[in-house]
Amino acid sequence: MIERTEAQQFSREEVGLALRNHGMHLEGLRYPTTPIGMHYLLIHFDIPAIDESSYALEIKGCVRNRMKLSLEDLKQREKVSRTVVMECAGNGRSKLSPRPISAPWGEEAVGCARWTGTPLAPILEEAGLLDEAVEILFSGSDRGIDAGVEHTFERSLPVQEALREDLLLAYEMNGQPLPPQHGYPLRLIVPDYYGVASVKWLESITALNEPFDGIQQVVKYLYQESEEDPGVPITRKLPRALMVPPGIPEYLTRRRYVSPGRIPIEGRAWSGYGRIERVEFSFDGGNSWEDTRLGEPEDPDAWTPWSYEWVAEPGEYELCARATDESGRTQPLQTDESWNVGGYCVNAVQRVPVSVRP
Amino acid sequence: MIERTEAQQFSREEVGLALRNHGMHLEGLRYPTTPIGMHYLLIHFDIPAIDESSYALEIKGCVRNRMKLSLEDLKQREKVSRTVVMECAGNGRSKLSPRPISAPWGEEAVGCARWTGTPLAPILEEAGLLDEAVEILFSGSDRGIDAGVEHTFERSLPVQEALREDLLLAYEMNGQPLPPQHGYPLRLIVPDYYGVASVKWLESITALNEPFDGIQQVVKYLYQESEEDPGVPITRKLPRALMVPPGIPEYLTRRRYVSPGRIPIEGRAWSGYGRIERVEFSFDGGNSWEDTRLGEPEDPDAWTPWSYEWVAEPGEYELCARATDESGRTQPLQTDESWNVGGYCVNAVQRVPVSVRP
Repeated sequence: MIERTEAQQFSREEVGLALRNHGMHLEGLRYPTTPIGMHYLLIHFDIPAIDESSYALEIKGCVRNRMKLSLEDLKQREKVSRTVVMECAGNGRSKLSPRPISAPWGEEAVGCARWTGTPLAPILEEAGLLDEAVEILFSGSDRGIDAGVEHTFERSLPVQEALREDLLLAYEMNGQPLPPQHGYPLRLIVPDYYGVASVKWLESITALNEPFDGIQQVVKYLYQESEEDPGVPITRKLPRALMVPPGIPEYLTRRRYVSPGRIPIEGRAWSGYGRIERVEFSFDGGNSWEDTRLGEPEDPDAWTPWSYEWVAEPGEYELCARATDESGRTQPLQTDESWNVGGYCVNAVQRVPVSVRP
Repeated sequence: MIERTEAQQFSREEVGLALRNHGMHLEGLRYPTTPIGMHYLLIHFDIPAIDESSYALEIKGCVRNRMKLSLEDLKQREKVSRTVVMECAGNGRSKLSPRPISAPWGEEAVGCARWTGTPLAPILEEAGLLDEAVEILFSGSDRGIDAGVEHTFERSLPVQEALREDLLLAYEMNGQPLPPQHGYPLRLIVPDYYGVASVKWLESITALNEPFDGIQQVVKYLYQESEEDPGVPITRKLPRALMVPPGIPEYLTRRRYVSPGRIPIEGRAWSGYGRIERVEFSFDGGNSWEDTRLGEPEDPDAWTPWSYEWVAEPGEYELCARATDESGRTQPLQTDESWNVGGYCVNAVQRVPVSVRP
């Protein structure tokens, strides 16, 4: 179902996706909270036009009490803010060979925003899930064709995941109403999962008595080692560390140039499998590694700042960063170690070529 | 100096530029003012980190009174807002063949924001331009390498252009402090010119006694019909009309699918050469044209809304839009009619392939 290519070059369709679905400028790692407009975006279809005055979220399916909640109803409920790293499951995809044809992410499909809204669990409790409910389906208003099938963007979670206390129905991003491109007027936030779980333009929540088998659940966003592998759904974010590329760039290649001396290197790291325990830095392409200094994340689901002072001598280098989380998960050295059919969860170490010029 | 390719495929460098420098989602044409994060971006180097508390704009060169203005000083001056269409001079470039290698824009490098700041002319008058001043140079804080030369991003305007009453030093976008990626804390706005003139992260303004010959002025952003042509600097935006692509998209190809019947088509048009006088619509790839209904722009430099009701019957179509301004300038039918070395000012009519399916 997912085409791939061995080409080093990219198609016009891939470029079109890149122009619509932008990454975070890596110098944006300097901000604890990513400014609106720098946070990555992945919009499968079009950004829907939604009229807030007639908007209502529907809760339906295997529930005792069907509900309809206006944005005002939602705002009058308990209000909670969480700073959350959000990352596209396809981050890193474009470095695979052969490469699955989809959004051609380098490693910039990330952002860390402050989301404000109301917890989901109490709403599901009020709706009263029936015993036969096994999954909760989240339906957006965006509609289009993918993998040959016309559908509305929908994703489900098992009931026990949907009832976790950290899931939010968010109506604000960084203290402002959700921008249209981030899900206005309402989106789900699933803090530790890849971004695909955090359904935008949320229109309804449906308790299902059997597992959801929509395109975005069972065809896309599956981790399959080969076409024959039935695959497992992607869920939590694997660990990743990124640095702000030091020095100045060349416009087209983005290659970096720095002057010799003490170069402060700073970055952020995250994992959906728990606390970041270690971030290492390498200036020689991953042959030797040094521990960096970790700061404190702003929130349990925010990213962890790290820093290192590199003493640079003239020459050519490849700077690398590698994160390890409390579960012991770390980043592979080579991208193709995590090759998979759809190009998901590709979390090889970042590599930043740098010239140090006197 | 500018490389080009005949390849139908795009390089990793072009994709990298697309991921950093995003376009406006064309459905964003529905908003009179483009939301922050949907407006196009072109960042030649890195987004600089600027500390507002120590920030000061310097006015220097051939002036009687050198000045240093803090952001607070600027905010205490006359406050003006203007809604302005901003468009990259490279918009449309990727459709040329052969294609200059740079940001691979389709036609989405546009946005229309509400910029607030203080007029430039009274500041230049206070500084007292000396008689020998011929150009005013605007210097940003962004630095990098382009066309083989390390430089700070700088652009100049002839004195009489810099003294126009419609130029702004803007510190707000859509009523908010400038986002980092749009020039925080201060940028120039030159309403009718392509975006390159509206220097971001403005650090100094220098009155020059000879024409500026920096890379971004005399090597890049030149309209050259051939390598031998000395070229002319690009200035004002050529006319362009864009429509919101109707119906629903296919994820990868972005091809549109609509149901038969009355399809409201809406869009916006603009020109740096004056009022939009006419926008035409074609459903047959530009063989036949119909006039559309024009609305009123919000501001003299904002875009002009237009609309048309298309009665769609099952089949395959190519929808087109074409703008004509009060100067009589219009859009060419074919992209290659405006082929030029750097791929600037490429304003061929928009073409939207659509399948009408029962």
